[in-house]
Amino acid sequence: MQSPPHDIPPAHAIAELASQLEDDGVASARAFAEIFHNLEPEDMALALEALPLEKRLSVWQQIPHEEKLDALVAMRGEARLLLLRHLSLAELHQLFDEIEAEDLLELAETIPDAVVDMALGRMDEQQRKYFEMAQQYDDESVGHWLNHDILIVPQNTRVADALRLLRRETSDYTEVLYLVDRTGRWTGCARINRLLSAQSHQSLAELREEDYPSLRAEEDMYEAAEEVEKSKYVALPVLNSEGVLLGRLDVGTAMDLLREQAENQLMSTAGLGEDADLFAPVKRSARTRAVWLGINLMAAFVSASFISLFDATIEQVVALAVLMPVVASMGGIAGSQTLTLIVRGLALGQISPANFNALLFKELRVGALNGALWSLVIGIIAGIWFKSVLLGLVITAAVAGNMIVASISGVVIPVMLDKLKLDPALSGSVILMTVTDVVGFVAFLGLGTLILL
Amino acid sequence: MQSPPHDIPPAHAIAELASQLEDDGVASARAFAEIFHNLEPEDMALALEALPLEKRLSVWQQIPHEEKLDALVAMRGEARLLLLRHLSLAELHQLFDEIEAEDLLELAETIPDAVVDMALGRMDEQQRKYFEMAQQYDDESVGHWLNHDILIVPQNTRVADALRLLRRETSDYTEVLYLVDRTGRWTGCARINRLLSAQSHQSLAELREEDYPSLRAEEDMYEAAEEVEKSKYVALPVLNSEGVLLGRLDVGTAMDLLREQAENQLMSTAGLGEDADLFAPVKRSARTRAVWLGINLMAAFVSASFISLFDATIEQVVALAVLMPVVASMGGIAGSQTLTLIVRGLALGQISPANFNALLFKELRVGALNGALWSLVIGIIAGIWFKSVLLGLVITAAVAGNMIVASISGVVIPVMLDKLKLDPALSGSVILMTVTDVVGFVAFLGLGTLILL
Repeated sequence: MQSPPHDIPPAHAIAELASQLEDDGVASARAFAEIFHNLEPEDMALALEALPLEKRLSVWQQIPHEEKLDALVAMRGEARLLLLRHLSLAELHQLFDEIEAEDLLELAETIPDAVVDMALGRMDEQQRKYFEMAQQYDDESVGHWLNHDILIVPQNTRVADALRLLRRETSDYTEVLYLVDRTGRWTGCARINRLLSAQSHQSLAELREEDYPSLRAEEDMYEAAEEVEKSKYVALPVLNSEGVLLGRLDVGTAMDLLREQAENQLMSTAGLGEDADLFAPVKRSARTRAVWLGINLMAAFVSASFISLFDATIEQVVALAVLMPVVASMGGIAGSQTLTLIVRGLALGQISPANFNALLFKELRVGALNGALWSLVIGIIAGIWFKSVLLGLVITAAVAGNMIVASISGVVIPVMLDKLKLDPALSGSVILMTVTDVVGFVAFLGLGTLILL
Repeated sequence: MQSPPHDIPPAHAIAELASQLEDDGVASARAFAEIFHNLEPEDMALALEALPLEKRLSVWQQIPHEEKLDALVAMRGEARLLLLRHLSLAELHQLFDEIEAEDLLELAETIPDAVVDMALGRMDEQQRKYFEMAQQYDDESVGHWLNHDILIVPQNTRVADALRLLRRETSDYTEVLYLVDRTGRWTGCARINRLLSAQSHQSLAELREEDYPSLRAEEDMYEAAEEVEKSKYVALPVLNSEGVLLGRLDVGTAMDLLREQAENQLMSTAGLGEDADLFAPVKRSARTRAVWLGINLMAAFVSASFISLFDATIEQVVALAVLMPVVASMGGIAGSQTLTLIVRGLALGQISPANFNALLFKELRVGALNGALWSLVIGIIAGIWFKSVLLGLVITAAVAGNMIVASISGVVIPVMLDKLKLDPALSGSVILMTVTDVVGFVAFLGLGTLILL
């Protein structure tokens, strides 16, 4: 059967319906049921996130009970937290009845500890064991996020027995059997396709795939996700430090992780969390954003204090005040181009001490070339605008100098932050902008003082 | 077997070795061979991208011949283009001998047409047919990027025959058989696991999975990749408008697409292409970045021209010149926070006419709250710094006003650009910054003129 055309994103359709919802929340339950039918949990999650808080709650009530938990797990952290806060304890009990370890791990940080304990109390023993094992690993490591939906068999199992087991199995992303020795250590994988052409009395150890890659539970989860992507397998086994097979990281989870990482990078350039909620309450949004505004304000006052060194000059040559934002902005843009390229290079693992100098030298030359071009353009425009050749010369020198400094800073700042284990995507741009502002203002106003007065 | 620890990214190890390479390129071929052994093509590609151009060529020569094409396909567009330009025609011939349609499609845009024709001439007929079919679809659509490594069988095939076929098959990501009717129309999929428990005389049509999703060849490739991600299947069938099965989009390709999209978003905020090369030649880098600098320069001159309206005021109250960047920057930061959130919401499909007003109102209130807070802080600091209550009042009003305008602009500008089919991630921030600069300068200097003179 073909899926319906996706011309209208489900989030839009639901938002449209929700906007017609009467405030008492009774209208059009049938219309909702129609939309929710056949919708993936990710789409439900997007739809919920696309709704103002009150509407989010009314729509939540329309979601079929058995889909609620999946939708909740698929939601972004902040949106989910706010929804959970509005659910009664009875609803939470019902929701978390028979919850699996993976889902509870995903939710654990956004629900009260008492609710986690309640859910654990109702969990079956195997799932609770999984939960506790995952908790032993840092929540940035792959051991915290592994998947237990995996077919593990002793390596000396006969093909006939393995095929019998497979007939009962319907889990996602199954292409291999995971083989272990008597102590639970992983010894390799056997492809199901190879089982079909094997003799029924052969042992699986004979069908073992050569060079099948594996992951260590302590490994960083994003790096592990990349290894899954590169491997072209649908999942990789995850082992503890003794080589014991704990579970697997499948390609679905790997995709979620890579997407989360990308969102994180994008949002952090504006000082936002990757899980920020479009419709978080005003006070909450204002509070989370205030920190970034405060940091930037300090940077802005640093720049202002440098300008104030030259107030006597500005009083005499007002054109300097008019043009100084141009000088600062050109440095800022040139610097963030370099910074963005370097931040990506760092994330991909392309930048090392061995190529640092070559990179720095290259960016320096790009900065010099664009500096030469644009400083001349700006100098000519400024010279004509204010009818002063000297002013044109001053701004040309200041822009060229600032753009060269910006290129160097665009390489050095993120690499330095990375060495200090700070996120260059987050703090890199504030530091860079402060440098280009200060250098721009000081160069322009300083030269102006020397030459124009 | 366990994969080696990934503590040192391969790109670093190779860059390190390359930096020791004698300029004649003969040294340590054995050391290279050791590193390249067991390396995925993606890692080779990253390593090549991490090298300055001359080194890139010497290392390229060290790559085992049979791995070269895969490494080339995995490279980012610009880096690949520059490498290809340095290869001789003889090398290209050798490289593209027996190339498959998918790989040639990936490379087609970065190699000369004559080389594409040469490769097509040596391609086997089936692959050439695939290539020509893909060319019929736009290169943003899934029909252009589909994978033909797929098991297609008539739906009335017997289970016994299907199992025989499967015994010979070893392609990646195989969990189902794709069923078609006599005209080639896709009728559904049958899971291989279900074949194991079926009677050997049953037809595959009886084992068909209910509600198996599919993609249309004209569909946008990024949307299609998201559908694969959500589906939890390792691949989805791709159909033409008549329902004929053309191929599939597998989860590996879907991951590449989603990563490409994320990189694109991140890079475009700095006016860079997603495939930009760390070590592109200086002139080339300078040229691609110059466009963005030029656009920003125009914006900067717009701001400057508004400042110049108030030159008489600045001459009398120099503190205004000192503080005006603070006013502009606070608006800029508040605006880009909103913009970033909205751009993500647009990319996810969360923003619709139905929730636009609620969003606008929410951001307006966040802007007002943070505006109230920070304008007061700034007003107090400025008042004390310049010992003027009136100046403190002027800057308080200007910052508060600018931050409120910034919040509204942060919602309205990207939504408007999106409606005009322009990329809000690319052009949104320039427009926003121009608005916040102009509003900040005019509000601050205008109020200063009215109140302080």
